[in-house]
Amino acid sequence: MAVNFPSIDPTQLHPVAGVTLGWAEAHIRKPNRKDVLVISVDEGATVAGVFTSNRFCAAPVTVCREHLEHVRSSGKGIRALVVNTGNANAGTGEPGLVIARETCKELARLAGIAPEQVLPFSTGVILEPLPLDRLKAGLPAALENRKAAHWYEAAQSIMTTDTLPKAVSRQVTIDGHTVTLSGISKGAGMIKPNMATMLGFLAFDAAVAQPVLDALVKHVADRSFNCITIDGDTSTNDSFILIASGKSSLPAVTSTDSPAYVALRDAVTDAAQALAQLIVRDGEGATKFMTVQVEGGRDVAECRQIAYAIGHSPLVKTAFYASDPNLGRILAAIGYAGVNDLDVGKIDLYLDDVLVAKAGGRNPDYREEDGQRVMKKSEIAIRVLLGRGDAQATIWTCDLSHEYVSINADYRS
Amino acid sequence: MAVNFPSIDPTQLHPVAGVTLGWAEAHIRKPNRKDVLVISVDEGATVAGVFTSNRFCAAPVTVCREHLEHVRSSGKGIRALVVNTGNANAGTGEPGLVIARETCKELARLAGIAPEQVLPFSTGVILEPLPLDRLKAGLPAALENRKAAHWYEAAQSIMTTDTLPKAVSRQVTIDGHTVTLSGISKGAGMIKPNMATMLGFLAFDAAVAQPVLDALVKHVADRSFNCITIDGDTSTNDSFILIASGKSSLPAVTSTDSPAYVALRDAVTDAAQALAQLIVRDGEGATKFMTVQVEGGRDVAECRQIAYAIGHSPLVKTAFYASDPNLGRILAAIGYAGVNDLDVGKIDLYLDDVLVAKAGGRNPDYREEDGQRVMKKSEIAIRVLLGRGDAQATIWTCDLSHEYVSINADYRS
Repeated sequence: MAVNFPSIDPTQLHPVAGVTLGWAEAHIRKPNRKDVLVISVDEGATVAGVFTSNRFCAAPVTVCREHLEHVRSSGKGIRALVVNTGNANAGTGEPGLVIARETCKELARLAGIAPEQVLPFSTGVILEPLPLDRLKAGLPAALENRKAAHWYEAAQSIMTTDTLPKAVSRQVTIDGHTVTLSGISKGAGMIKPNMATMLGFLAFDAAVAQPVLDALVKHVADRSFNCITIDGDTSTNDSFILIASGKSSLPAVTSTDSPAYVALRDAVTDAAQALAQLIVRDGEGATKFMTVQVEGGRDVAECRQIAYAIGHSPLVKTAFYASDPNLGRILAAIGYAGVNDLDVGKIDLYLDDVLVAKAGGRNPDYREEDGQRVMKKSEIAIRVLLGRGDAQATIWTCDLSHEYVSINADYRS
Repeated sequence: MAVNFPSIDPTQLHPVAGVTLGWAEAHIRKPNRKDVLVISVDEGATVAGVFTSNRFCAAPVTVCREHLEHVRSSGKGIRALVVNTGNANAGTGEPGLVIARETCKELARLAGIAPEQVLPFSTGVILEPLPLDRLKAGLPAALENRKAAHWYEAAQSIMTTDTLPKAVSRQVTIDGHTVTLSGISKGAGMIKPNMATMLGFLAFDAAVAQPVLDALVKHVADRSFNCITIDGDTSTNDSFILIASGKSSLPAVTSTDSPAYVALRDAVTDAAQALAQLIVRDGEGATKFMTVQVEGGRDVAECRQIAYAIGHSPLVKTAFYASDPNLGRILAAIGYAGVNDLDVGKIDLYLDDVLVAKAGGRNPDYREEDGQRVMKKSEIAIRVLLGRGDAQATIWTCDLSHEYVSINADYRS
């Protein structure tokens, strides 16, 4: 069902020096599937993350925040990440926190590091106790099979309703030094990240000072994972992590003002956008990939508000599923987006290159067959011109199909 | 597909003295269906309305607002309402306004009243020109067949994707005088009213002074049509109209402080809630009727915000469709509702009488089979206790099924 999902060649995913990945089949929820991942990071790396804004954030998210805070005060860096699927360890109260902490403790014991040097992540069903014993039992095998070349297997091991593993890899030259980036993500449903997405991990071998990496992770998340939506449901477990292993010959990036930072920032943003878009392309039941671009707004916030109103509307999404140019539904979504002083008489609406609505009404030259022609495509741009300023925003989303309902009606069975 | 939709006996819909209703088959979009309705109101009635907050409001909504304003300054009351289905006359710019005004002019000419005494309403496809000639051609037949006993036929004539006509009728005794109320509504999709619903008309024979009726219509809309959602899409055409014909022997209600006002207000609210709930019961593809009650909030606004987050979540809605007690999805929706200082450790969640989550985590006594038992029902109460105040709010919604996707993927074909 995925929409124009690029074929991923496992051999083209570059190892990132200083980072190894190992998986296990721990039977967290279902047997015979990779459901535990350990990512190890050599000493000297910096790690930064952004997490869900959901108030019901999962226990591992709380522990991640604590441990990243600890890193800042202790100077002892993050050395391992552990991810399980099948159970989100969310809505689990105090017992859930104990389980997340015990997981870190066990991995730390096995790897000879401190528990605060471990970041835990979970994804899967909410409100059910995570089987700690199974997870602990899976850790030795995951540690055992760690390899720098395991990015593809790592992507497989974090899938839930994803139909395809999601990974990207890039090599860029900065100031004459090669920098290698590889990353993985998972998504599929409960996707309207607000800080970051369900799970995204992106590692590169440049050295980046902690405050610079903290700035970078926010910059990147706001331009990638925070620009996608599948169903408007912001997950309890969203986490996006950057790992800077520092093994590249590029001198350490210690300021956001340097040309090297800008080059690195753009390369990381590009890779993260690709990862985020893979999530949309493999969105639950997706048959169309839509880019919603809102221009001419007073500020980015109102452009995003309107773009999300379009991207979340079940009526817009079902019309795209049907390839039906029932485009008044887009105007309706613009109208209820909550921009209260919007002058609709200034609004133009394009579908790809077709001008559908002009100055708030139907373009007299618009012909249904032109709309129909665009709607039949699998990649469609919706462009809204507000005519009230210079700001703009872009989000990526998918349609709403029968398959989405089937997947989510059957998810736990 | 409708959920526990009460059988409506056309003979039990009471005529309201001073109000007659006539319909026509005008072939606005499809042949052989009632698609034009005229409601005539005798001289001396007062009429008040609330309308959509969608910035892309339809041309007839703009004209309604103008004409209701005119009534206030001229003292000349509203005498007729005209409704067409098949075309929303929204996103139609200036030409759409001309069409709405021409419609009023033609009806006024035929009925011997002023154009400003007519309120126009449209519902159907957005962004397409309303065929004025067909609408005008249908008006004489609609005027011709007006009868006080036509409430059921009137309900039929405003249906779009509705599967059943929606009407309620009540008789109440106030200060020893009988007051009769009858009303109709339509809905089905693009339902998240914000002022009022798609179309709702409620008439009664008590006399009510204009300022009192203006207050009443807001009070009633906030407790009925503004408490429902099907898909979260606020329509361009939402309109809710109260007609007070003044033919009852009850002395005119001229103050919101009188006991008669309170009795009338409660009767009208009760009838409007019934009409609003009929819309949800016949929501597109609905198989479950859910009441979402949020209690213990600091104010009504935050209770509504959380109730709507639950009611709009595609993941919550598909879980209910599947009768799957995947109730962590409700916690996730509470968490991302946008109440930023929410202490989730204080939240309890009930499904009917079953305590699912306690103090923000799974209730240790909760058994999956208890959740399963409730989920199988067609009427389900979701109750959230926030534990931070005394405010509460209730909304009514339905599930998200395959049928919803089918209906909205096929709507125009």
